[in-house]
Amino acid sequence: MSPTKPDLWRIPPQETLRASRAGPIAEFPADATPGFDGDRKNGTRLLADYGTRLAQLQEKLFAEGRAGGERSFLLVLQGMDTAGKGGIARHVGGTMDPQGLTVRGFGKPTDEELANDFLWRIRKALPPSGQIGIFDRSHYEDVLPVRVHNLVPEAQWRSRYAAINAFERELTASGTTVIKCALVVSKAEQKRRIARRLDRPDKHWKYDPGDIAERAHWDRYLAAYQDIFDLTDTDAAPWYLIPADRKWFSRLAVARLLVDGLTAMDLRWPAADFDIATERRRIAALEG
Amino acid sequence: MSPTKPDLWRIPPQETLRASRAGPIAEFPADATPGFDGDRKNGTRLLADYGTRLAQLQEKLFAEGRAGGERSFLLVLQGMDTAGKGGIARHVGGTMDPQGLTVRGFGKPTDEELANDFLWRIRKALPPSGQIGIFDRSHYEDVLPVRVHNLVPEAQWRSRYAAINAFERELTASGTTVIKCALVVSKAEQKRRIARRLDRPDKHWKYDPGDIAERAHWDRYLAAYQDIFDLTDTDAAPWYLIPADRKWFSRLAVARLLVDGLTAMDLRWPAADFDIATERRRIAALEG
Repeated sequence: MSPTKPDLWRIPPQETLRASRAGPIAEFPADATPGFDGDRKNGTRLLADYGTRLAQLQEKLFAEGRAGGERSFLLVLQGMDTAGKGGIARHVGGTMDPQGLTVRGFGKPTDEELANDFLWRIRKALPPSGQIGIFDRSHYEDVLPVRVHNLVPEAQWRSRYAAINAFERELTASGTTVIKCALVVSKAEQKRRIARRLDRPDKHWKYDPGDIAERAHWDRYLAAYQDIFDLTDTDAAPWYLIPADRKWFSRLAVARLLVDGLTAMDLRWPAADFDIATERRRIAALEG
Repeated sequence: MSPTKPDLWRIPPQETLRASRAGPIAEFPADATPGFDGDRKNGTRLLADYGTRLAQLQEKLFAEGRAGGERSFLLVLQGMDTAGKGGIARHVGGTMDPQGLTVRGFGKPTDEELANDFLWRIRKALPPSGQIGIFDRSHYEDVLPVRVHNLVPEAQWRSRYAAINAFERELTASGTTVIKCALVVSKAEQKRRIARRLDRPDKHWKYDPGDIAERAHWDRYLAAYQDIFDLTDTDAAPWYLIPADRKWFSRLAVARLLVDGLTAMDLRWPAADFDIATERRRIAALEG
């Protein structure tokens, strides 16, 4: 039972996109719009509705945090280069109040970060109570490029899946709702997107010649992703595969998962911790 | 010369609202719309235009940061309770990409913060290179409630104005553009806004009975603000008085100051640090 009404979703994305059910990533159709009975235009309109609801839900979570509540929300985004993680942060995160939202990117670790446990920089960036956090890349980088390029011995990266599960259990037990989305772009669409960056001088800053070398490791990345889904897709911190060849659909699907995740928190406006009648009298007595 | 075209501004806000020219805060008209030849409807439409431009300028700043640039932008917001600092963060900050924006609030300091210099928590929250930061309250709290309530000896808070000027000089010298806006709400409008919070259960969380006690210190706050303007309104880090009784105008004025401040940075897309023809050939050779 999804807490939102069906909209144009014939099947809620929780059922079609959950990693454990969506099948191996290597066979996942990146250009599909599973369960959604609508086109780009419908999707864009619905995304605007979700934006309004996200803003409302976020304000309640923020209010709860101000009133002493300790819950928060974390969206983890992973995906190959050009999959659109930044676009999700912008178009889905952008519907919310920036006061209650923290977007954090995790690039190549600094020397200080490397000198610490791989979760050290993640813990420092967790959303505080009442806040929504979006991670553009995350602790999963430590079992993705780190594994593909053998940056640490196998025994070390192998031990990280269990460490991640323990960390995420701890996170959710302390009141953070966690949703993890892997944006799946096809190899052909990635090629088009990389080429497009070269065509526009205002996109050159996004072009990294190293991205082409990374493509040579495509299948090893897919295998690393598959292990992530097999080992860390838990009910407490579920993984979703998001078809990302159509940007409008990936944004819509992630927004829907966020709306449902926040709705399931059953957020309420904090009750007044003062006497309303007394305060009315105090205000009436004010000058001005 | 303002870098933006006149729009409906007969006089740019830099000229009418700069603290040193806008006259004493105690006589500043909080419901005025100085220099703007338009009404709420015009202002709201223009704010949407500014939002589009802010998003473009922000992306260039972000790109510059990614390319190794060290510049950033800081908007400091101060104002009495209900003046609308949060609304600015939401409606002006909300036009930008949350990836490139950090909104930080500074409430009552923690024990750890009190054990450190008053600028310690501020330094930790400064926007990184390529980012825009919005401070909802700031280091100026240490010469506002701290001074009004004698939380530290006078000699100590008196020394802070010079410390703040030195700090802001250092900030701007290292590449951060700083703009400081004091939202000025009238005592009558504040009373209406406080009363409205009581009328709506979804606003009770914003109601703090302590705000009414603070109103008793109104004139001492005005005096503390006036000293701030007299002592820390510098060309490097200017103060603006923003009339805040009309929310649409305060948002418009702050957005205009941001647009102009970012435009004056003369942001350019970073040049490619790779050979475009070579990369085109590499891409053409890719499978997929």
